[in-house]
Amino acid sequence: MIGEVVSVGTELLLGQITNTNARFLAETLAGLGIEAYFQQTVGDNRARLRQALDLALARSDLVITVGGLGPTEDDLTKEVVAEALGLPLVEDEKVAAAVRCVVRRHGSQPPTAAVAKQSLVPQGAVVLPNPSGTAPGLLLAAGAKLVALLPGPPPELEAIVRQHLVSRLEGLLARREAEGTRRVYLRSRVVKLCGIGEAAVEDAVRDLVRSPNPTVAPLVGVGEVHLRVTARASRPEEAARLAQEMVGRVRGRLEAHIFGYDEETLAGACGELLRRAGLTLAVAESLTGGLVGHLLTETPGSSAYFDRSLVLYSNAAKIELAGVDPEVLRRHGAVSPEVALAMAEGVRRASRTDLGLALTGIAGPSGARPGKPVGLVHIALAGGRKEGLPVLVRCEFGGDRGLVKLRSAQRALTLLWESLKAGR
Amino acid sequence: MIGEVVSVGTELLLGQITNTNARFLAETLAGLGIEAYFQQTVGDNRARLRQALDLALARSDLVITVGGLGPTEDDLTKEVVAEALGLPLVEDEKVAAAVRCVVRRHGSQPPTAAVAKQSLVPQGAVVLPNPSGTAPGLLLAAGAKLVALLPGPPPELEAIVRQHLVSRLEGLLARREAEGTRRVYLRSRVVKLCGIGEAAVEDAVRDLVRSPNPTVAPLVGVGEVHLRVTARASRPEEAARLAQEMVGRVRGRLEAHIFGYDEETLAGACGELLRRAGLTLAVAESLTGGLVGHLLTETPGSSAYFDRSLVLYSNAAKIELAGVDPEVLRRHGAVSPEVALAMAEGVRRASRTDLGLALTGIAGPSGARPGKPVGLVHIALAGGRKEGLPVLVRCEFGGDRGLVKLRSAQRALTLLWESLKAGR
Repeated sequence: MIGEVVSVGTELLLGQITNTNARFLAETLAGLGIEAYFQQTVGDNRARLRQALDLALARSDLVITVGGLGPTEDDLTKEVVAEALGLPLVEDEKVAAAVRCVVRRHGSQPPTAAVAKQSLVPQGAVVLPNPSGTAPGLLLAAGAKLVALLPGPPPELEAIVRQHLVSRLEGLLARREAEGTRRVYLRSRVVKLCGIGEAAVEDAVRDLVRSPNPTVAPLVGVGEVHLRVTARASRPEEAARLAQEMVGRVRGRLEAHIFGYDEETLAGACGELLRRAGLTLAVAESLTGGLVGHLLTETPGSSAYFDRSLVLYSNAAKIELAGVDPEVLRRHGAVSPEVALAMAEGVRRASRTDLGLALTGIAGPSGARPGKPVGLVHIALAGGRKEGLPVLVRCEFGGDRGLVKLRSAQRALTLLWESLKAGR
Repeated sequence: MIGEVVSVGTELLLGQITNTNARFLAETLAGLGIEAYFQQTVGDNRARLRQALDLALARSDLVITVGGLGPTEDDLTKEVVAEALGLPLVEDEKVAAAVRCVVRRHGSQPPTAAVAKQSLVPQGAVVLPNPSGTAPGLLLAAGAKLVALLPGPPPELEAIVRQHLVSRLEGLLARREAEGTRRVYLRSRVVKLCGIGEAAVEDAVRDLVRSPNPTVAPLVGVGEVHLRVTARASRPEEAARLAQEMVGRVRGRLEAHIFGYDEETLAGACGELLRRAGLTLAVAESLTGGLVGHLLTETPGSSAYFDRSLVLYSNAAKIELAGVDPEVLRRHGAVSPEVALAMAEGVRRASRTDLGLALTGIAGPSGARPGKPVGLVHIALAGGRKEGLPVLVRCEFGGDRGLVKLRSAQRALTLLWESLKAGR
């Protein structure tokens, strides 16, 4: 089966947003063993959308459109797909009810015109419910062709694909295979590393990166390096086995730096180690403004080990809530190892947690002082060693304010992870 | 002039990387006033690359290919472009020298075959030097058509575009304009709204969305709606004037909900209002885990009004740091209007700030209780009215844990913004 994604939206042609949906869908199709030869992007224009659709329908078995399902004037996808397939648009009462419910939940009044527009579906369409938005996904079978229509907002698109589209495509492919169609299976694993640079990772796996199957591709994230392993085979378990084998070879070389795999996050890995060790954590943040707490609480169940994060932006807050000595603040300044240490020990004491993690630094663009450049960050971990001695790290990060904050948060989590990995 | 980007690479079709080059090039073309109607992505396959190229050459004046310029077997772009334009590949000694130099700089031995392959260019190609990689960009004029070939690594592509391609296209467009070809300039503004749904925004500007120039297109963000105004004109200042005029018409209808324009953020808008009013803010977060503080501190200079955020994940933290009455917690539960209120007033009192903002809720997937579903969030703002009466909001958000957290944070910032806008 050949699949093709057609992304619809003038904002993509103007470069106002990055097309992350195309990547997510491409990965999803590859995971199902559905090959993709082309992707198209077209604007909110009836004639050109029709042109792109006709081309995709002529050369692909499964066409997935993204975007243009909203209530507004320039949302044309449903109309143009129905036209291209020669299907009438009919009202779907379940969709209408769902739209009203979502609009109500968001507190605004549903304008009847918008609800009516969103309630129309091409005749015979299977509705793929949208858990968080007004526009559901739609799946159409037209002769030998399949057309799926998905809304543009990534969280909504991903939820619909994961909860509804994948299982329906799986079932279809299984039936076709039973009828004798040969299937190619791709299986990917992502190995995630921290505390090591891209170049060092590449040096360690240079020969593996040349392998044709499974392929090994390095991807650089902020404060992380990922290795994507992709195996191809005619049986899913064979593809999975090949991928797993390669992951094992990678692990054999880089184990000390691997914090997780696939969807796992660094914050989640820290949480898992805290949970297993039965330890609790409190955080005192300054320049990161709450980002460390935000990352830690992205993991379900984090309340089991995460007690609190104190974002101590002002000196007053540092003194009152982390018990930082005003004299230390005066003598060394807020951005100093002494204050990072005092914050880590103070928040740990105040929260009666096993561990206290603290950051203080200069996110910029302003705030630099002689000897204290923008991007200077001090990180401290209290209770992070069996002998109870705190750990201190000094970093100088480049990049704009947002990047300095993210790099600082990732470095703090890396420090926590390495300490927990070493047995607290 | 119509431009079209053709991205080449099987890794894009497998979803192993996000196509950030397409966004960068789309934005660059729009800035030059070069219109784009389509984008294509195709794998490292000779026949299909030719098919994509022929289609682009038939419907666009400028075709920009990305990727497939490397030394390996599956780097085909140069060969296929030369073939499509009927041009021979000839060795370019300057390119050969540059390739050898870069390869040496990277310390490895230049394999002669690879150097030879990379030194070939379609006859008549203008070489656009690559400051950091082995594959230079190439610019070809074939009859009325222009073809630019760029390497895939984003830093290399962006450097070549900024240092060489933009100025050459500028010069060309200027010459064509001098020869009487009408040149089109695009200027875009983004109007950003909160506290109103997409459908209601659409109702307010339904007639404007039908306008052909400037165009007005809604974009839905999490807790925000954006209206993208894009004007076309034959003079840049005229395009800017038209866009500004339309922004004024939008403002006339939706002013009460407009928090900012273009790159401005909701958190930044809150900060600006706090700064102007000389007010300070403290936040008490629960389910958002620090996200509200993180968003507020993304704005440079936020320390002028943002004092602290207390992420009170545990009940103990809520009692100790926000002075929440244990009895209130016991009777109403942590996720209740009473506790949200107590947190807002408690953090305001403890921080001696003008305003106290608090959130408590259930991010999920677990934690639901009878009458308290996942996604239930209570938000309170203390000090947010002249008469000092706190404001309370109850919401039920859909989506996964991450989306519930983001929607909650955005709703809290909207409450703060609306209160400050209404004169605190």
